[in-house]
Order: sequence, then structure tokens, then C-alpha cells
Amino acid sequence: MLKRYLLTPGPTEVPPEVLLRMSQPLIHHRTPQFEDLFAQVQEGLQWLFQTTQEVLILAASGTGGMEAAVANTCSAGDTVIVVNGGKFGERWVKISQAFGLKVVELKVEWGHAVAVETVAQALANNPGTRAVLIQASETSTTALHPVEQIAALTRGTDTLLIVDGITAVGATDTPMDRWGIDVLVTGSQKALMLPPGLAFIALNDKAWKQVERTTQPRYYFDLRRERKEQLKHTTAYTPAISLINGLHEVLRMLREEGLEHLFARHARLARAARAAAQALGLTLLAPASPSPAATGVWLPQGVDGSKLLKYMRDRMGVDIAGGQDHLKGKIVRISHIGYAGPFDIITAISTLEMALRRFGQDILLGRGVQHAEEILLEGWPTVG
Amino acid sequence: MLKRYLLTPGPTEVPPEVLLRMSQPLIHHRTPQFEDLFAQVQEGLQWLFQTTQEVLILAASGTGGMEAAVANTCSAGDTVIVVNGGKFGERWVKISQAFGLKVVELKVEWGHAVAVETVAQALANNPGTRAVLIQASETSTTALHPVEQIAALTRGTDTLLIVDGITAVGATDTPMDRWGIDVLVTGSQKALMLPPGLAFIALNDKAWKQVERTTQPRYYFDLRRERKEQLKHTTAYTPAISLINGLHEVLRMLREEGLEHLFARHARLARAARAAAQALGLTLLAPASPSPAATGVWLPQGVDGSKLLKYMRDRMGVDIAGGQDHLKGKIVRISHIGYAGPFDIITAISTLEMALRRFGQDILLGRGVQHAEEILLEGWPTVG
Repeated sequence: MLKRYLLTPGPTEVPPEVLLRMSQPLIHHRTPQFEDLFAQVQEGLQWLFQTTQEVLILAASGTGGMEAAVANTCSAGDTVIVVNGGKFGERWVKISQAFGLKVVELKVEWGHAVAVETVAQALANNPGTRAVLIQASETSTTALHPVEQIAALTRGTDTLLIVDGITAVGATDTPMDRWGIDVLVTGSQKALMLPPGLAFIALNDKAWKQVERTTQPRYYFDLRRERKEQLKHTTAYTPAISLINGLHEVLRMLREEGLEHLFARHARLARAARAAAQALGLTLLAPASPSPAATGVWLPQGVDGSKLLKYMRDRMGVDIAGGQDHLKGKIVRISHIGYAGPFDIITAISTLEMALRRFGQDILLGRGVQHAEEILLEGWPTVG
Repeated sequence: MLKRYLLTPGPTEVPPEVLLRMSQPLIHHRTPQFEDLFAQVQEGLQWLFQTTQEVLILAASGTGGMEAAVANTCSAGDTVIVVNGGKFGERWVKISQAFGLKVVELKVEWGHAVAVETVAQALANNPGTRAVLIQASETSTTALHPVEQIAALTRGTDTLLIVDGITAVGATDTPMDRWGIDVLVTGSQKALMLPPGLAFIALNDKAWKQVERTTQPRYYFDLRRERKEQLKHTTAYTPAISLINGLHEVLRMLREEGLEHLFARHARLARAARAAAQALGLTLLAPASPSPAATGVWLPQGVDGSKLLKYMRDRMGVDIAGGQDHLKGKIVRISHIGYAGPFDIITAISTLEMALRRFGQDILLGRGVQHAEEILLEGWPTVG
């Protein structure tokens, strides 16, 4: 018998309350019943995005949301500055290229945050830049980029700031309106604790103005049409009904927790994961600007990461993410986004300790857990 | 947000496969469809009980199965020897008294196993004893009684051996036919990984002969009637249909695992729990004859167990069992029965470490987990 644990930074585990909610019989989407449900999740999403703008719901992966952002705001031939510090930065590059944009690529070493000055310099060098494209949290490298400071550069200019918040929104503070993010995208399978299948995108007035002017061909992701329908609490095309039903329950849970506690929970688990990894003598991939979504850790020399992950998954039942592209086999990513609590960190660290020992590493069993526990314990109240 | 863990020795967690199976639409119980389902679980239960006898399924708690055992085999005025080494030994006493039996009570200090010689002596002192009533695993004290050796005393005599196997069957080897257990009872919410609501009882030929002679009034638990119906793959009264549907899936899972691995898994988790508790400086409640269902641990002086359990449950989200009756507030019981794997032990130990520290104990965080990991790691294969 192998009890299975899904401890990856997306998809994350789905809470039982949400699984139950999604198992309810379907309702039809062209009904007042659905419109009522939709209106409620719209309001919840505004709360989550910290915006007064509509947050549009698309039946798509997060990548669909990223494409919608580009296709609706950038015309062929436009110049965009793309921060490429990982797999998802690279995805911005590819989407931009697919839509005929001129890409000024700011390559950032994986695991690092972009320097604000680098972006400022690129903006200065490329007057008339249509948009800066960036990840708030680069999932592949577990690094956070300084979105707040970059927003300060684009705010009040004609350049849009388009942020992939797929592993940031709901995990770390990314207040769209307050910071002046022009376009913010996220997906369902991260902090929103849902299965994949929904993308969310919000645009401010400055971005909407650009949507009207953009000449890209678009149909499914035409946000003008979606906005028109969603202002009437329905969608242009068939919505992913059960996911939206689950989203209603998720938003209820997140609002019960509150934004402050939500971010504090992610930060606490992330601190515990970092302390544990370091106590095991492992090096962090993104020590200077670590994400609260996941903690990337370099594996010791000589450990075949692909075999290690396979062993943890097939033998121990624990799914922990590895690296992508050139980091494949070299890192593991301990997740703490979404439906994650202290004992998910304990389980992940315990798995890692035992598996590394099994792979011949000189690991002191329990050492990582000890350091995780020290951090986690601080988060529980004292005895009254 | 509080993620909840049910780590008690009954009810135990129910596997997702089983929850899904129980969520299927009901079928009616007077149909060939149900009879087919029933025949399959009957065969699976015989495999689990290691018997060629019918294993009867009752819509009842385990206590209902215990009552059925007594009411069908012992007439008012009969003498029974009851091994009372805990809450459930005491339950045998109370059931026996309710049915007008003369009880020879063998009191055993909680946490200890009965000595085989004590039972032998009682049998010698009480010729004509109708039955010996015992727990295979005394859930309240986490001690195992020596059922195999006691069966050797009653085998070939007129005295029945009636065994409460509620936290033993499926957790530790209790081969009914091979050992010569005359009546064996279990419940659904322990090693069978189901919600409570089903009791299972099997009687051998010697016991069935007695059933015919017994003069107790009985109706719902009249096993003559049940046997007659269940030989036709149905039940005398309305069966708990969804639980029986879930049972079908449970038996499929257990057979896939195999009895040998099933018992080895419980033994491994139990060894890890004991090693961890001792490494934390805690004293085992049943060191000499520990159960593979749960590990009872004395709490340090000065720790209010009721407050500790409440803290672990309400603050940390982890439900760990405490003591009953005079052990209330003084012990905790770490469960390893049913749908339990290595990371349930890690979670339970980690919870206990942190909670004890929070309650002012001089606990080295991670120390218990370390010792659990050392045992658990042995159970995973080496890297090929």
C-alpha cells in the first residue's frame, strides 16, 4: 500500500471541501443560478487580486491567461521588455515571438531576481516600449522578482506592466491596484487550491485602453468580448462549471483565512523549508529573493535528481518537484503553495532526508525536520 | 486554515478510493446485483479472517459484534472467564453481566498482557466454563494478549475462545482456523479502513453447535437467522449498503497488498513509533507486549494530557488519541492501524514533539522523528 502525497508547486492538493463541492451535479451555465454563482466568485477574485477591476475567468491553463495578456495588449511589431529568469520568463519570450513582438530580453541567471536598475536601463534604452513582461514568482527557480519596484518605473508611463502572478497571487502580497500592476494573471492550480483548468486575468484602465487599440487577431481570448459578457455574470464561451463551483468554496475558505494570514502561512512554511534544507547542508537555489510558493534546493554532487524523484514518488509515495531544462536532475523544489500546512513541510523534508540517505549521502536523519519544527513551532500560539 | 489529520486508532482515515466507492449511487439490497457484491466481500472476509467459516456481516459497531458473540453462545448462568486488561476487557465483563453470565474476571494491569498460566489456572479452577473472552489487541492500553497460546488451552475442550479482534484482524496475524479461535469479531473502522458501522463475526463448528443450544433471547443479533440468509448472499435485515460497497474496495486493496505485507507494514510503523517515543524520553505503556495497532505512551509528569490533546487537535489540526478512564490525561496513543503509512508516524511524532515543547517539556525537536526515520528507512528498498 502506498499512500500518496502531492507536494508539488502546482498542481497542489485540493481540499476535501472543494473536491466535494466540485462533485455536485452540474448546473447549466445559461441560468440565473450560474450567474449568481459567477457574481459571487467575481467579487471574491477582486478581493484576492486587491483590485476594483473585473477579474476575468477563462477556461484555460495559466499559459492561456499569459497569451490573453499579450494578444490583447501588444500589436505585432511592438517592443516588449521580457524578464527571462526561468522557464516561465522564457514562456513570455515565446508567446511574444509567436505574436510578432520585438523582444528585448533581460536574461537573469536562474535563481536570481532581476535587478530593478536593469529594467530601468532597458526602459531608458527602448523608448516606446509597449510592455514589460515579468513573473512575480518564477516557479521554475523559486525566485521572486521585485514587481513593486518595477511597477514604480512603469506607473504613469505608456508602458504596461504585465505580471504573471501564477505562483504569487494568494501566496504573497501582490496588490494590483496599490502597486499599479497593469495586467495580472494567475491560474487555478496554485494558491487557489483547485485542479488546473482556469486562468484569471485582470487589466486596469490603462491596459483596457490598449486592448481597444491592439491589432492582434484573437477570438477565444478576446478580452473585449469576455469583459462584456462577464459584466453580465456569464462567459463568452462555455465555462468550466465544476471548477467555478469549486472556486466558490476556495474563495470562501481563503476569505475565512484572510489575506494577512494567507500570506503569513506561506511565509512561515517557506521559512521552515529553507531552514530545514540549509540544516541538511543543502544550498538554496534562490537565497537572496526566495519565493513563498516553493523552495528550490541544489542536490549534492553525485545525486541523480531524476532517480531521486522517481524513488521518492514510486517507493515513498511522495511527489516532489524537480528542476526544468538545465536544472533537471540537479534541484528539487519543496512546495508550500496552496493547500499546504506545517505537516506537508515535515513530510517533504522527512522524505528528502531519508531519500538522500538512501542515495548514499551523509545526512543526519531528523536534522532537517528539527530545524523546520523550530520555525513552525513559533507560529503556533503559546499555551494560555 | 487548519489541515486536519485523523491519526486515531479507530476511526482511522478512509482511503480516497474507498470514499469514492461509497459515494456511488445506492443499489437495492434485495437484488442479484447486491448478492453478487455480497458474495465477493464474503469471500474476501474469509481470506482476511483466515477461515473457511462464513464471516457474518452485521450493521453494528464492533460492540454489536461482541454482544452477538456472547448472546449466541452463552446462556444465563453460564460461567465465563474474562480477561480484563483495559476498557474493552471491561466491556466483555459488562456484556457478560448484562446477559446474566457468571463472570470469572482476570484483572490485568493496564498495559500488560495476561499471563497464559493465569488463564490456565482459571480454567482449571472453573470446570465447565462456557467461554474465555479476550481481546487480541486491547485498544485502550495498546497491549497484545497471547491469543495463540490461550487457544492452545481451549482447543479440544468444551470451552469456547471468543476473541475481540477489533484492532487485531488485518493488523496482526490472527489466523482463526489455524490457531483454533472459536469466535472472532472485528469492526469496520480499524484495519478495514472504513467508517464505523459494520461488525464482522465468524464462528467455527464448535461455536455453532453452542449457538443452537443457547437459551438467550435474541433477535437482531440472532446469528442462526443471519447465517441462513448470508449463505444466500444477503442479510436478515437491511444491510449498510454503502459500507459494504466500500468494503469491496477495501478488500481489493488489502488483497493487493497481501496479508504478509499488511502485517509487516503495521509492525514497521509500530516499531518506528516506539523507537521515536523512547528517543523522546517517553515511557511505553505496553513495552513487553505492544500492539501493532497503536503505541501507548506515558506523558511526562506535569503535562495535562487533555489540554495537550486539545492543543494538538484545535491548534495543530492533528487528532491523536488519549487515554480512557483512569489513563485519561496521562497517556497518548499513536495510531498505526488501517490506512496508515510512514508519514503518518512522522506527522504524529512531529506533532507530539512540538506540542510537548510548547507545554514546557525539555524536548529535543526532531529527535523522535530521527529515530522513526531510522526504522522506516530500513523498510524501503535499496537503490538498484
